[in-house]
Amino acid sequence: MRYVLLVAYDGTDYGGWQIQSNTVTVQEKLTKALKETLGADVCVTASGRTDSGVHAAAQVCHFDAETTVPPERFADALNFRLPADISVLKSSAAPDGFDAVRSAKKKTYCYRLYLSRRRNPLKDRYSAWIKYNIDLQKLKKAAEMFNGEHDFKAYCAAGSQVKTTVREIYSIGVYIGESRGSTDVEISVCGNGFLYNMVRTLVGTMLYYAAGRLTEEDVLRSLEECDRSAVGKTMPANGLTLENVDYGVELF
Amino acid sequence: MRYVLLVAYDGTDYGGWQIQSNTVTVQEKLTKALKETLGADVCVTASGRTDSGVHAAAQVCHFDAETTVPPERFADALNFRLPADISVLKSSAAPDGFDAVRSAKKKTYCYRLYLSRRRNPLKDRYSAWIKYNIDLQKLKKAAEMFNGEHDFKAYCAAGSQVKTTVREIYSIGVYIGESRGSTDVEISVCGNGFLYNMVRTLVGTMLYYAAGRLTEEDVLRSLEECDRSAVGKTMPANGLTLENVDYGVELF
Repeated sequence: MRYVLLVAYDGTDYGGWQIQSNTVTVQEKLTKALKETLGADVCVTASGRTDSGVHAAAQVCHFDAETTVPPERFADALNFRLPADISVLKSSAAPDGFDAVRSAKKKTYCYRLYLSRRRNPLKDRYSAWIKYNIDLQKLKKAAEMFNGEHDFKAYCAAGSQVKTTVREIYSIGVYIGESRGSTDVEISVCGNGFLYNMVRTLVGTMLYYAAGRLTEEDVLRSLEECDRSAVGKTMPANGLTLENVDYGVELF
Repeated sequence: MRYVLLVAYDGTDYGGWQIQSNTVTVQEKLTKALKETLGADVCVTASGRTDSGVHAAAQVCHFDAETTVPPERFADALNFRLPADISVLKSSAAPDGFDAVRSAKKKTYCYRLYLSRRRNPLKDRYSAWIKYNIDLQKLKKAAEMFNGEHDFKAYCAAGSQVKTTVREIYSIGVYIGESRGSTDVEISVCGNGFLYNMVRTLVGTMLYYAAGRLTEEDVLRSLEECDRSAVGKTMPANGLTLENVDYGVELF
C-alpha cells in the first residue's frame, strides 16, 4: 500500500531534503518518525530534492507500508514525532500507480527578496536582502525571456549528473509590494522541472539584468549558447521556497 | 548630544528588551555594540520594554554621547557589530527635549495568528497557531469592545508595579487573509500605552469570545469590574510584534 504526504518545512537548519552522512536532513527526520510510527524501516521519496537551506510549503512524498493505520491518521502520528520545523499537513492513500517523482507534472518555486538600505531581521529568514538598486520594470521584463523551453545548462551547478538540461518554464510571475519600509519582491517560477541551483541562478541573472550588469543579449546568449559567463550569481538558499507540486489529480 | 535609533529585532532568541542577569537581551547587545563603537559606556533607552520572545519591526531608542560620529552613520557602525537578528534601520540626532519613553504618543502592536488543523513551520516564527474553530465575525466584534479608555487591570500580569492600569485604545483592526491552506489573522492594536502582557491577554480574550468560551457580558465585566476570571489566556510571545511608536514628529 502506497501513502502520500504533504509536508512543510523550514529549511534553515537542514542540509536539504536528501539523507547525507555529514548533515541533518529532512528526509532523515521523516524516515525516523515513520520508523517510530510503523516499527519498520521505510523509504520515503519526495517529488525532488530541495537544497540545503531551501524551504518547502508543500513538498509531496510517498512511502510504501503494510499497516492498519488509516491513511489520514499519518499526519498527526508523524507530527507527534517530528521536530517543530517539519510538519505533515496532510496524508492520504496514493492513487494507483502514483510516484512522487515520476507523476509530477509541474512544480512551482517562489524566490523572495527585499530591497532595502539596511538588513531587516524580520525578513531575513525567508527572503534575500538586496542592497543595491534595481529597475523593477526590467525585472518584470527579464521574467519574459525565460518563458518556454530552453537548455538551462548554464544555470545548472557544475558536476550535476542529469540526462538532459532542457526544461520548460510555463510562467514566471514577479509580484511587488511594500512593507515595513522596504520593497518586497516575489518571483514565482512554474515549470516541468528544475535543475540543481537553477531557480537561484535564474533569479540572480534576472537581478543582474535589472541592475544593468547583464544585457538582454547576455541573457539570450546564456540560454541559446549555454554561456556560463552570461549568468548572474546564484542567490542564497533562504529566499527559496518550494510552493507547489502539481500531479494533475487531487491527492488529499 | 542625544541620538535616536530605529531598531528591528527578531525576539525569538532573546529574553526581551531589558538587560537581565540570567538571559541574553536586546538592550545588552545594543549596549555592547555602542560601547565598541564609541569606546565608552552608554545607556540606551527604548520606548518601552518588549517581553521575552516578542519581536520589534520599529522599536525606538535614545542614548546620549559626546562624539564626532555623524548621527546617520550610527546605523551602519552598529550593524557591523550587532548579531544578525538585530538591525538598526535608521539613526539620527534627537529633537530638543526628546525622550524615547516620555515623548511617545502612540504605540502600535500587531498580533498574528493562523487558523489551521495542523502546525505550519513557515508561519510559526511570527504567528501563533490556533487549532480550534473561531467565528471571525465575532473576532471583529470583540475588537470594538476594547476601543476607548478602560482600566486594564484584569489584563495585566500580576506583580507589575505601575501607577495606573488605565490605558486608552485608539483602534483595533482585525485583518483576515488566506495563505498556504490556512486563514491568517492580524490584530493591530494602537493605544497610548500598554501594560505588561496586556496585548497578549487582550488577544486571548478576543479569541475566547470568538470561540464562544466567554460572553459579551464577561468581556464587559473584565473591563468594568477588572474581573480576572472573565479574561482569556495570555497568548504566546512569538505572535506579537511592536510595529510602530509615534512621537508626533518626524524623527528620521
